[in-house]
Amino acid sequence: MSIKFKDYIRKLHKLRSGRMYGNDFFLTWEKTYDEIQAVWTVADALRDLRERNISAKVFDSGLGISIFRDNSTRTRFSFASACNMLGLEVQDLDEKKSQIAHGETVRETANMISFMADVIGIRDDMYIGKGNAYMHEVADAVESGYRDGILEQRPTLVNLQCDIDHPTQCMADALHVIHEFGGIKNLKGKKLAMSWAYSPSYGKPLSVPQGVIGLFTRLGVDVSLAYPEGYEVMPEVVEVARKNADAAGSRFTITNSMDEAFTGADIVYPKSWAPFKAMEKRTVLYGNGDTEGINALEKELLTQNAAHKDWACTEEKMKLTKDGRALYLHCLPADISGVSCNEGEVDGSVFDRYRTPLYKQASYKPYVIAAMIMLAKFPNPAEILTRLNERGTQRVFG
Amino acid sequence: MSIKFKDYIRKLHKLRSGRMYGNDFFLTWEKTYDEIQAVWTVADALRDLRERNISAKVFDSGLGISIFRDNSTRTRFSFASACNMLGLEVQDLDEKKSQIAHGETVRETANMISFMADVIGIRDDMYIGKGNAYMHEVADAVESGYRDGILEQRPTLVNLQCDIDHPTQCMADALHVIHEFGGIKNLKGKKLAMSWAYSPSYGKPLSVPQGVIGLFTRLGVDVSLAYPEGYEVMPEVVEVARKNADAAGSRFTITNSMDEAFTGADIVYPKSWAPFKAMEKRTVLYGNGDTEGINALEKELLTQNAAHKDWACTEEKMKLTKDGRALYLHCLPADISGVSCNEGEVDGSVFDRYRTPLYKQASYKPYVIAAMIMLAKFPNPAEILTRLNERGTQRVFG
Amino acid sequence: MSIKFKDYIRKLHKLRSGRMYGNDFFLTWEKTYDEIQAVWTVADALRDLRERNISAKVFDSGLGISIFRDNSTRTRFSFASACNMLGLEVQDLDEKKSQIAHGETVRETANMISFMADVIGIRDDMYIGKGNAYMHEVADAVESGYRDGILEQRPTLVNLQCDIDHPTQCMADALHVIHEFGGIKNLKGKKLAMSWAYSPSYGKPLSVPQGVIGLFTRLGVDVSLAYPEGYEVMPEVVEVARKNADAAGSRFTITNSMDEAFTGADIVYPKSWAPFKAMEKRTVLYGNGDTEGINALEKELLTQNAAHKDWACTEEKMKLTKDGRALYLHCLPADISGVSCNEGEVDGSVFDRYRTPLYKQASYKPYVIAAMIMLAKFPNPAEILTRLNERGTQRVFG
Repeated sequence: MSIKFKDYIRKLHKLRSGRMYGNDFFLTWEKTYDEIQAVWTVADALRDLRERNISAKVFDSGLGISIFRDNSTRTRFSFASACNMLGLEVQDLDEKKSQIAHGETVRETANMISFMADVIGIRDDMYIGKGNAYMHEVADAVESGYRDGILEQRPTLVNLQCDIDHPTQCMADALHVIHEFGGIKNLKGKKLAMSWAYSPSYGKPLSVPQGVIGLFTRLGVDVSLAYPEGYEVMPEVVEVARKNADAAGSRFTITNSMDEAFTGADIVYPKSWAPFKAMEKRTVLYGNGDTEGINALEKELLTQNAAHKDWACTEEKMKLTKDGRALYLHCLPADISGVSCNEGEVDGSVFDRYRTPLYKQASYKPYVIAAMIMLAKFPNPAEILTRLNERGTQRVFG
Repeated sequence: MSIKFKDYIRKLHKLRSGRMYGNDFFLTWEKTYDEIQAVWTVADALRDLRERNISAKVFDSGLGISIFRDNSTRTRFSFASACNMLGLEVQDLDEKKSQIAHGETVRETANMISFMADVIGIRDDMYIGKGNAYMHEVADAVESGYRDGILEQRPTLVNLQCDIDHPTQCMADALHVIHEFGGIKNLKGKKLAMSWAYSPSYGKPLSVPQGVIGLFTRLGVDVSLAYPEGYEVMPEVVEVARKNADAAGSRFTITNSMDEAFTGADIVYPKSWAPFKAMEKRTVLYGNGDTEGINALEKELLTQNAAHKDWACTEEKMKLTKDGRALYLHCLPADISGVSCNEGEVDGSVFDRYRTPLYKQASYKPYVIAAMIMLAKFPNPAEILTRLNERGTQRVFG
Repeated sequence: MSIKFKDYIRKLHKLRSGRMYGNDFFLTWEKTYDEIQAVWTVADALRDLRERNISAKVFDSGLGISIFRDNSTRTRFSFASACNMLGLEVQDLDEKKSQIAHGETVRETANMISFMADVIGIRDDMYIGKGNAYMHEVADAVESGYRDGILEQRPTLVNLQCDIDHPTQCMADALHVIHEFGGIKNLKGKKLAMSWAYSPSYGKPLSVPQGVIGLFTRLGVDVSLAYPEGYEVMPEVVEVARKNADAAGSRFTITNSMDEAFTGADIVYPKSWAPFKAMEKRTVLYGNGDTEGINALEKELLTQNAAHKDWACTEEKMKLTKDGRALYLHCLPADISGVSCNEGEVDGSVFDRYRTPLYKQASYKPYVIAAMIMLAKFPNPAEILTRLNERGTQRVFG
């Protein structure tokens, strides 16, 4: 057993995470701070096992179901990696190839795909008021299916991005920050700028900025949310961030100046998103099948975006940050000026300088997802991890 | 070892299922009654193992190949679940992504995908005279491939729905009925109504009604097949049902009255299908690439369907059944009036009342498929199951 | 331990293959002859293990990533089979479903999909100067990712067909030939005709003929490359073939007469391909998005092809070969006259006579791929294989 591993187990024993057992993961702020920390701790322990070539296979067989209602690479492979690490085989529900066209209820589909499912991961982030609600419908359906003896096990639901939060992303982001700063305790009083940034594309989800302000405020980090007028996020989540900041003794502020947010920041997260109200409008237009309205809205939003090309993470902006060396975060893929577009969220030179930490940030996601699954499937994660370590099955034969 | 499990093993020892070893599963009536019962018994034993968290992994590695020539959710996930339970990884042959366009023979493709395949599951139900024939071509191809030393193992073929039968569905249906009625012995003299029902969609396969009349007649159940004039099923299968009924001492009748079929029925299976002769015609039209003819036929069939909207499983119809409480069956998804369509196969209130048993009915499919695979791959299923039980590998670590 | 297996292990001990560890497999001629032989030997040993129902699972978990930028059946299933045999789960990167549209760098995607990847298999064969280069970009990206601590393991890259070589195909072809002739030593002085053949389709990759002349010349086989004027292959690869022939003491000749190549040949490989220069032109046209130019080129090439319908592997041509009984090879699918097209690469009767050896030829591919993976992931393949044999885990329980 490594020293690190022993520490993780000791820490885990102190955290109250029992309520996660048999439960789902929708939004970070629905979890206690102990539960949030348990996810990071299990994630760290799983990574430590892997570094020591010890298998974390807790399932001999079983399926991990994924439903992606939006394109995905990172999250798709992270979910597949997490499932594989624990012993689950991924089976993707491709709604185009399936026979669920004619008005089949969510309740029915959810049960039909879950006979051998231990986890269901869903990405549904496009329409305000829809994604998270859909996930709850699925979770409720399998809960009744399990109670009614239809399913032999209760699959846990992992939110792989909804209209409100992107918990697997933000939890990975935070774990990265924790490691970069040498522990949670060092985050107290640090400043994070969650800033809107210009992108030539339109309609990016709000889940990342919302997830970030909802989570980092709990870590004692002072969070400054910055956006041009009109780019508000969901008011409910702003409320969450405020409350979290109050409880943690940190500060949560909103500004319409990127410079203000960046000034003295230890961490910056410049990223494009669509205005909350426009997304609400779009949801209604889609509901009505109003193609003309959708096109008009798109044009309007692109014009609105284009008025804010100065909202970019340039070398100049970076100089405003703490010692000019804030940690740059992004959920990827970024719109990199001169690389993936003419003008975008970030200068090529800034992005390049942070490439390794950025990729490392992303690399925590499989472990975070696996940790969420483990905490939902086992009432005693510390014991399970300890026994996995003792079992010592090699991941790679040798 | 659970008491139930002991019973299954004892029963299995008495059944002659040896001929299934090294063989395929095309149509239920090609199997002896012992063989049919062996499938249910193995399925029950596998479910019992799972309930006791004991792994049924009989393959350390190996592939389960699926070929879906029609959309599918339930069967796709059931096949995936069955393979996963036994230790096989599913690899889907997506004919769009594969390089089998220019006139490649079935014989060649079948061998090229089977180097590590232990099972091939095929759904091909759209054209009369085609699906089952295609499955035989595939099975013959891998049989020669195995004999010629090309394949190291002979993959078994499982019919996941053809133009004639839907054996994995009907075997699951029957296993559900057996459990609901407390054993096969209690089915003697019970009445099942396999009835056509109105659907706003057109061209549904005949395989379910055909599979049901071909199978349930063997269980001593009196089967009443009901449809409006013109909705005949394949005459060969009617012949099979007659013979099976004679042999089992049960009754098989055909009526053009849904009421007659429902009256006093213990079990009802109301479901839409296309007239056999129209499907034959369609097959020819597709063969000739006659789009105009296909469209005309579709219009004709929809009009014909619409004349029979009174063929629906309403609350009134249900009152005709035994004590007004017949067991309602459906292969799902159903066309539910007021839910998935305006007018359809079944009233919303009837469907709702039977939701839990309906989902339970579906939940037997993975076990039935797994049982078919086991009986084809192992000459001694009772011994294998006994040893799996003794091995006692936990499915979920703990 | 079988006698054959003992021989393989003994042979493997003598071969210097250590440089393959931690490396990739791009082109056969970048590997030493010892390394090439190590691949065949490990492939043979893996097949022997499988024949004795012994598991070759060296990974308890882990992913095998596939990227197919062109349709594929054989290679797709061979890669899946190889991964499954070793314990890796295949996760396909479907570039249509992934979020890598807007200018994301290869470096980023490569890392994002590789957090749990032990192998990446890529097919990218359509554009001259592109496929192999892309593979190197991916390999370089994961190499840095591993060094920078982003990836916990360094996935090995396996070339599943590029613009230059098709190493998994040609290595399988050669292993088949070795077995058919009873060992490499019997190939000395044998004659192989790698001949162009007519096909009604256009633009077939050059990788197979190039791979064949680059590889078989090393085995002491006299290789005669035949094509109609204008169907030249890449000059660099011709150079490789010349050098290999010189080093091995074999002959490499080019002729514009199919008869000349076939005369006295022990092995024939008649197959269509597109002229190298036309492929170069096409690459430029695609780069410019010049649809009109592409269509014009296609027409031109089809006309050019049609002038050479006499380049077919007919019964007459076969009579020219050694005793009229040369071993016929093809990578499949072949354009078979009267079967998959009116006039094509080979007579139906010739193809039929060689069907079993042809399928056998294909059956080596999964083992060759698995061997490439093993040699890249383990510094001591002989020891690993010996210990797998000793471990003796059954592939199929029994």
